[in-house]
Amino acid sequence: MKYQNISIIGSGNVATHLALKLKNAGHKILDIYSRKIINAEKLANKVASNAINDISKINTESDIILICVSDKAISEITNQINFEPKLIAHTAGSISIKELARFNNHGVFYPFQTLTKNSEITTGDIPFCIEANSSENETTLLNLAKSISDRVMLLASDQRKTCHLAAVFACNFTNHMYAIAEDILQQHHIPFDILKPLILETAQKVQNHSPLLSQTGPASRNDVNVMKQHQSELSSVHLEKMYSFVSESIIELKKRTDKQ
Amino acid sequence: MKYQNISIIGSGNVATHLALKLKNAGHKILDIYSRKIINAEKLANKVASNAINDISKINTESDIILICVSDKAISEITNQINFEPKLIAHTAGSISIKELARFNNHGVFYPFQTLTKNSEITTGDIPFCIEANSSENETTLLNLAKSISDRVMLLASDQRKTCHLAAVFACNFTNHMYAIAEDILQQHHIPFDILKPLILETAQKVQNHSPLLSQTGPASRNDVNVMKQHQSELSSVHLEKMYSFVSESIIELKKRTDKQ
Repeated sequence: MKYQNISIIGSGNVATHLALKLKNAGHKILDIYSRKIINAEKLANKVASNAINDISKINTESDIILICVSDKAISEITNQINFEPKLIAHTAGSISIKELARFNNHGVFYPFQTLTKNSEITTGDIPFCIEANSSENETTLLNLAKSISDRVMLLASDQRKTCHLAAVFACNFTNHMYAIAEDILQQHHIPFDILKPLILETAQKVQNHSPLLSQTGPASRNDVNVMKQHQSELSSVHLEKMYSFVSESIIELKKRTDKQ
Repeated sequence: MKYQNISIIGSGNVATHLALKLKNAGHKILDIYSRKIINAEKLANKVASNAINDISKINTESDIILICVSDKAISEITNQINFEPKLIAHTAGSISIKELARFNNHGVFYPFQTLTKNSEITTGDIPFCIEANSSENETTLLNLAKSISDRVMLLASDQRKTCHLAAVFACNFTNHMYAIAEDILQQHHIPFDILKPLILETAQKVQNHSPLLSQTGPASRNDVNVMKQHQSELSSVHLEKMYSFVSESIIELKKRTDKQ
């Protein structure tokens, strides 16, 4: 493995996970940038790196610059980079590689995982989706990813977009369903712990079976009485709507696939 | 452990899992009832039991009769039982224990897990929620549950209802989000496998962290551009609505908890 000098733009969830993993794998983190210097310093201290809050000061000797900011901030950030980086990559699921086209050497280094600053990944390596503007840059990013993960694949911008959209449903929306469940239990002073085996098994089941075939519950049985009762128990109009909307969607999807 | 003679009404997901687990634990399964004799026979063959499709013929010597049918079928079933069972219990999350009040000895034996016929539980024992009309019956059902699980608790009907409602969100709705994600990927010929690490980690994360604090994704960052782009990529008005409805719900919940 060739160790790289890396600078990271951002200090949030993605920046934190990548900085720690890359540092642990033997790479050197030169600069951590954040708009707020205190945030840059917090992460920089963990990875023995320099902290900056002015992009124009980013180390021009960085072998790779990783942009780990929210999608909407990417163009603002890249507009402030006034030199030709050796290689620059963003880490966003929904942003095309073209967003970085004004740089000679650019690519995408997308961690396809839910990353929260203070939460370790416990289910194995982070999957990485790589794309680059040349086969040389592709190799550099692939090797960088392989130095911290055994799950590395090439993925073009269009496919990455689709994966990100699917992930919003499978991860973000799913987590929101957990949050609603937590809320319902809290209102009745029941600890969230009671749900944990069910949550884990639901996720485990689709590791080996299609979710379409794994669907259980009142909507999937079209059990109208239970659904009505549930709606009457919900504490807000918003949750009632959510309940009926998702239930109808389950019934619809079942109809559609039963026909096939 | 005292081995029991058990009869099971039903041959679906719950009946199948319970019959197999109870048989394996050393209990004797006397009768399996199903409306369709072929379904009763299929399961009965697996657990060396008798198959019936006439409830009036259920073995009156059964120590425990477990009702494992859909919620709406329970009263229809119990109306056909014209003797006094030694102990009868239903397995439904949303149905009060009172539904069985016309029997002298009755209770609830609720497996708080997502059970699909052809899918093994891989994340540990099934959690059981027990309720009964007397302490003696409670002990019998607790012991029966403990003979097949290390996760057994007492839970009153009201609390069980709340848990079942929360489970609809955390399990059934979550699985539907997986199914939508699968659908989106299929339309673009991307294998569902790519999502599996993310799905598992999302479920794993909330084993140790509150889902409220684990929320990631464009809605949680209020990233309007990505959300708009995602909606334009969705193939149906229904999914667009789902996307905006759940996204707004994430934003609302975040606002509410940020205020607290």
